[in-house]
Parts: sequence; C-alpha cells; structure tokens
Amino acid sequence: MKIKDLKVTPVAIADPPLRSSFGRHAPYALRLVIELTSEDGITGIAEAHGGEQALLDFHRARDLVIGRSVFDLARLRQDLMARADPVQPDEPADDAAMAQGGRIDVPIRVFAALEVAALDLIAMAWEVPVCELLGGRVRETVPFAAYLFYKHAGGGGAEWDEPRKDPWNEALTPETLVAQAKQMVAEYGFKSLKLKAGVLPPEDEIATIRALHEAFGPDVPLRIDPNCAWTVETSIRVGEALADSLEYLEDPTPTIAGMAAVRRGLLERGIDLPLASNMAVMSFADAAEAVRTDAAQVILGDHHYWGGLRAIIQLGQLCESFGLGLSMHSNSHLGISLMAMVHVAAATPQLTYACDTHYPWQDAADEIVASGRVPIRHGEIQVPVIPGLGVELDRDALARGKERYEKCGLRIRDDVAEMRQHVDPAWERVIPRW
Amino acid sequence: MKIKDLKVTPVAIADPPLRSSFGRHAPYALRLVIELTSEDGITGIAEAHGGEQALLDFHRARDLVIGRSVFDLARLRQDLMARADPVQPDEPADDAAMAQGGRIDVPIRVFAALEVAALDLIAMAWEVPVCELLGGRVRETVPFAAYLFYKHAGGGGAEWDEPRKDPWNEALTPETLVAQAKQMVAEYGFKSLKLKAGVLPPEDEIATIRALHEAFGPDVPLRIDPNCAWTVETSIRVGEALADSLEYLEDPTPTIAGMAAVRRGLLERGIDLPLASNMAVMSFADAAEAVRTDAAQVILGDHHYWGGLRAIIQLGQLCESFGLGLSMHSNSHLGISLMAMVHVAAATPQLTYACDTHYPWQDAADEIVASGRVPIRHGEIQVPVIPGLGVELDRDALARGKERYEKCGLRIRDDVAEMRQHVDPAWERVIPRW
Repeated sequence: MKIKDLKVTPVAIADPPLRSSFGRHAPYALRLVIELTSEDGITGIAEAHGGEQALLDFHRARDLVIGRSVFDLARLRQDLMARADPVQPDEPADDAAMAQGGRIDVPIRVFAALEVAALDLIAMAWEVPVCELLGGRVRETVPFAAYLFYKHAGGGGAEWDEPRKDPWNEALTPETLVAQAKQMVAEYGFKSLKLKAGVLPPEDEIATIRALHEAFGPDVPLRIDPNCAWTVETSIRVGEALADSLEYLEDPTPTIAGMAAVRRGLLERGIDLPLASNMAVMSFADAAEAVRTDAAQVILGDHHYWGGLRAIIQLGQLCESFGLGLSMHSNSHLGISLMAMVHVAAATPQLTYACDTHYPWQDAADEIVASGRVPIRHGEIQVPVIPGLGVELDRDALARGKERYEKCGLRIRDDVAEMRQHVDPAWERVIPRW
Repeated sequence: MKIKDLKVTPVAIADPPLRSSFGRHAPYALRLVIELTSEDGITGIAEAHGGEQALLDFHRARDLVIGRSVFDLARLRQDLMARADPVQPDEPADDAAMAQGGRIDVPIRVFAALEVAALDLIAMAWEVPVCELLGGRVRETVPFAAYLFYKHAGGGGAEWDEPRKDPWNEALTPETLVAQAKQMVAEYGFKSLKLKAGVLPPEDEIATIRALHEAFGPDVPLRIDPNCAWTVETSIRVGEALADSLEYLEDPTPTIAGMAAVRRGLLERGIDLPLASNMAVMSFADAAEAVRTDAAQVILGDHHYWGGLRAIIQLGQLCESFGLGLSMHSNSHLGISLMAMVHVAAATPQLTYACDTHYPWQDAADEIVASGRVPIRHGEIQVPVIPGLGVELDRDALARGKERYEKCGLRIRDDVAEMRQHVDPAWERVIPRW
C-alpha cells in the first residue's frame, strides 16, 4: 500500500485567554491537519502542532513520504532524522523552545503525525480500530483529568469571526477557580483535577489547591503544574505544603537537575510526593537522565513529540521497568489528536494516571471531525470499535478552519506577545519567577 | 478475526553433543510448534521451548485463547499473568531454572509464542510480512554470528532414528575449535564469531579466543560466553587478557550483582570491555537493575522469554535510551523461531550486534518448514517480502518431529544428566566453577 498524497492543512481554532507561566493564550491556537492517501484512495488523518514553520516542515518531508509504503515507518523516521538540520549548540533546548514548536525535535514531531496518519490509513484499510494495530486495548474507556486554568474573561476568537461564548468566565482567584472546576466536573464528569499554575504568587496557588481539596474532598486526585515557574526552594516549599492534597507535582522547576534537587529536598523532609514532567523530560534520552537522577517519578507522554503512538507504548514499558508512573500531556487540540490519545492510552497497560486534555476549552464550532465533538462522559472517552481512529474529516469544517488560519494572522504560538498586548506591556517570561 | 483453534505439537530435533557450563546437550532438543487458526481458516505459527511441562502450560492457556480476537494480545498477556501460579519464595530464580524452562516466567513465555503466532496469522490475512506489523523493516538482511561450541564427536539423534552425520567432529582444543570456526564461516559466511565457553579451564578458553583472533584477524568480532562459569575475579582476569580481542564478554559470572562487580573491576583496570547478558538480565525488571548497577552494556534479547516480538522492539528503545547495545540470544531452534527473530531484528533499529543462532547445529532432516532450511548467506538472512513470517509448516515433517518426540523419551532439557551418562558420572554443575 503506497502513499500517493500528503496533504497538510493549517487551521486556527478559537482559544480562550488562558494563563500560564508563559503568558496568555492567543485568541487562536494553531494546528495542522495531516492527510495521507494511499494509491487505492484510502485516507488516514492526524493532527500536529501548527504554525508556519511546522507547515514548512511537513512540506519539506513530502518527497520522503510520497511513493513510500505506508508500513515503511521505522525507516521513514530514520530518513527524516538523517536530513534534519543539525541542532545549533546555542539553540535553546528549554521548555520555551518547546512551547514555540522548538526546532530541536522537528523530525520526531513530523514523524509522529505521519505515523498516526499511516496507522489510521492501515486501520481503515483493514477495518480495525487503530488500537488493535498497537497490540490491542487493555481498557474500554480512557480516563481524562479536568484541566483547570487561571483565565481572563472571554471565549477567544476575533471580531471578524463568529462570536465565541465564554461559559467559564474570569478565574483569577481560588474561589473563581473552584467555580470553574465545579462547572467542568458537572459538564464532563472528570474524576481528577489538574491546575495549570505558575500564574499567581505561590501562596495564592497553594490556597487554590486547598480550596479545591476542600470543595471536592480527598477522593478527587489533584495535580498542580506551574510550568517551571518556581525555584527549587519554592518547589520544595509548595510540595511540602500540598503533599497531602496532591497525586503529583508537575514541572515545578526547570531542567532535570532542578527537578532532581526538588525531589531530594522533599525526600529529606520525609515527603515522597511524586514529581511529574513533560518539560524537563521530553524524550527517551531525557527519561534515562531522569531515571539516573530520580528527577521524575511520573512521565507525561505525548505522542506528538515522543515520536508517535508506538513510541508511547515503548515509553509505557520503560516506565514500568523503572517503576515510573505514566500520564499524558496535552496541548490545545481537536478531535483527531484526542482520538489518537485515546487509542494509544487504550493500548498502553502502564497508563497509571488520567490523561490531560485541553479539549473542554475548544469551541464546538471549530471541531473538524465529521461526527462533531468527541463526547467525554464520567470523565472518560469510549475507545472506538469502528475502523481507524474512529473519526473522519468534515471537509467544510476543515475549510472554515483554514480560512480562520489565513485571516487570523497568527503564525507562531506567542503567549508572551499576547500577555504584553492585553495584560502587562512589560511582561517577560522569567523562569523561575518565584 | 476470532481464534477458533490452538494446536500445540511437541517435536524433538536431533542435537549434537555440544558442551556448556551446564553439561552436554542431549541427543534431541525439544520444541513446541504452536498453531493458531482463525474462524475463517487462516493459520499463524510459532515455535516455543519444548518439553512436557511447557506443553501443559499451553494446554492450560487454551480457554483464554479460543474465541478471543487475534488482535486482543495486551489483554491476553494480562489474563495469562493474572492466573499464573504465584512464584514461591524458595523457587530458584537463577539461570539453571531458565535452562530447564524455569517456572517463573511461564505466562510471558506462553504469551510470547501466542503473540508470534497471532502476528503471523494477522500478517497472513492481510498479506504483509510480519515486520510490517511491527513498524516496518530498517534492514533487508539480518546479520547472525557463528555460534561455536566445544563438542564431542557425533551428530545427535538415537539409534532407532535416521542416522545423523557429524560434519563438525570433536572440538575440545583451541586447534579443533578454530577448524570448526573455519568450516562454519566457509559454509555460512558469518562475519562475527561467538564461543560458548565455560567448558575448559579459563586458560584454554583464552587460548581458543587468541587462536581465533589469529586465524580470522582483527576485523572479525569475537565474543565469549561461559554461561556464568567464572568467579568475579576470574571474569576480570579473562576480560583483561582478552580485552583487545573481544567485542563483548557475555555472562561471565552469575547474577546482576556479580556482573556489576566484574564491570567495576574491569573499569578500575582501565578496561572498557562491554559485558553482555541474557542470563543475569532476562526481563525488563532485570534490565532496569542492570542499568542502575552498570551490570551489562549489551542486552541479548530473546522474544521467547521477553514477551514476544513487540517486547523486543520495546527493549530496543530501552537500550537506546540508556546507551546499551542490543544483540539476540538463541536456544536450539527450527526455522519458525529463526524467521521470528529475523522479522523482529529487521524492525528493531537499535540492533547493534549480529544475532546468535544455533541453527547450523540442527539437521536439515528435522526442519519442519515447507521451504526447507532457511538459507544463511554471507552470515545474513534475507528479510522476507512474502506474507506472514515467510515460512509455512510441512505437515509430514511436523508429524515426523512429533513421532521423534514420542520415541525419544526426553521430557525436559537436562544437560547435567547427559553429562553424567556420557562424560563424567560425578558431574555437578558448579557455578562458578573457576
């Protein structure tokens, strides 16, 4: 089964003014929709991080894809890596680079999306769900966590676009954040809660977690993720303060060495609170270093930048081997990426925590899958039994997404610029800030 | 695609009187041939360690297999493990247990063979080579190493059976071992050589490696594997003596702690000779411990006891992540296991060394695959482009193998008993011996 065509469509999707240590989400998040079509006319789809450079990266891969067997994936990965730009020694390998779609793991990112589309294509051709190509499902539903954000009022989007509602309102205090959590749990049934922190001073964020703990009780696991906003000392202090309320503490401070220092500091205080990471630990090499230094006890996998669905299954085995937990990271995304996460989570026995997802923050109007928004019930998504990923493209919705991309003018993710424009003209991302 | 039938056929295949630290190979090696047949009549095959207990293990798994979807593998593994006998605390977890088909990893061994047969079945149904189900091939041929043995004269088999030639003669000295190596390289074109050691006193085995080095020159990589016959001190001494001639030193001494001590001793002497293992390191948990203690720098994977073909791909990623090399272990086997090794090796980018195989020691008369002996040319096997594993059963040959099993009377592998009967009535396997 040879690949005849690779189509990459940039789309923009409305995104509310969510806050993180980076700054503020722009009115649109950028995604790419990847389509691989075989010679006999079957199409597989995937979704990737968006923007102009990412679009170019896929166009540049085109000649390695067209005419190749859809099964010839391990070699495609090697070929993409072989001709990647060498990493410049002065290129920042930090989390900011990641948020901007950093240049470092471009071949792995490109490969990941192509692999998902290829697996969807194969599964469509053979009429089996994608998870059956990965070794089969070990669960019928995949649990997700509520992803709570401090945010300004507003639903995202621009004036020329259709008006976006903001069902969530402003949330910049513990009370309003708890209200957001209650609303999200009422709507989706999530059974664990994650707070994107690093926005307010640590004491206020500690107060928010305590308020959540009080509101939801001890049976609802809580996570806090300040996106590296804290020093090692602050991380230890917050960890100590919240040890009894958290299932894990995610990326409190930058770098593997920093995370390892937080771990040591907590253990010295008798606190065995797991540290989770998707910013210090972004690759198999990072995972090895994290194991060596005990920098993370939970890894948040992400098929978009670990190298696809099979790579996440491999990561699951690595985590089990070294006694690490496994959860899943998310960026703003649509239903294709969501279903890719569902299939790989279904086929990964070692998934130990509910997955992250930004999905509730996106607007139904922007969904590009034909069946509409993927339902989340009781905090879970049903693993499909129909062929492929279980979602197909709505061509009209895709065209609207592309038009939105063309009109919105955004070409990279730049949360700092947004923050300067709307909140604080002097904003710099300072890591660590507190 | 549901599984309608599971057939397990025990076979015996003639085996020459090869020597190792265990003792001496019996006149027959025992294997099982596994057949899974789908409701629509497609059959996938695999090969497993043989003997009476192994046969019972597969029969016991029958109710978990029949009626199950052929894709439902990860859950099959969980179900097999869930009802495995608990490991008794006093049960030996050592390499001797392994050689006897030890009870400890029974569910993983059973699963491994069922997975291979299931993947063959799927690949036959979809008309693709098995390696395409594993992510695709990264090589068109798979390199194997010559597996040299000290041995007595004789071709194996018994009197009632068809007479077996011994093209290899006795080899119990450096000179005769070099002759064996030359003959094997002439016939198969192997480009690296492995010596099964632990048979003669270490000085004689050092002399053998030196003779091989002299005979084949510095471009032919050499390995020595005494199956844990040496103390830590002896291992260090041999490693030091042979550091310039070896690509790796395999399982010189028992246990992960012992291997780690050898590694430290060598490094203290400035010798960075990789240690390889398939006896101290037999599972993902062992691999983690070996990483923590630097006990092995090369892992010899074996899909038969690591849990199947996908598990070996996962092992490859783990090895790459932690900077370990990867090679492949072999027991006496037929063409089905050989082709399973070929497919997984083809799909494992991280394979860094030629694979082991006992295949040249088996007799063409015993091969059960319809196409006859799998050809090894230039030390390599071609990765098939035809569907499935690329080999199918010769029913008559299988029936002969079963008859041989029934007649030969052997029901477990017992190299100690053979050694007592034919060489030394007082033989005990003493580990370490030197």
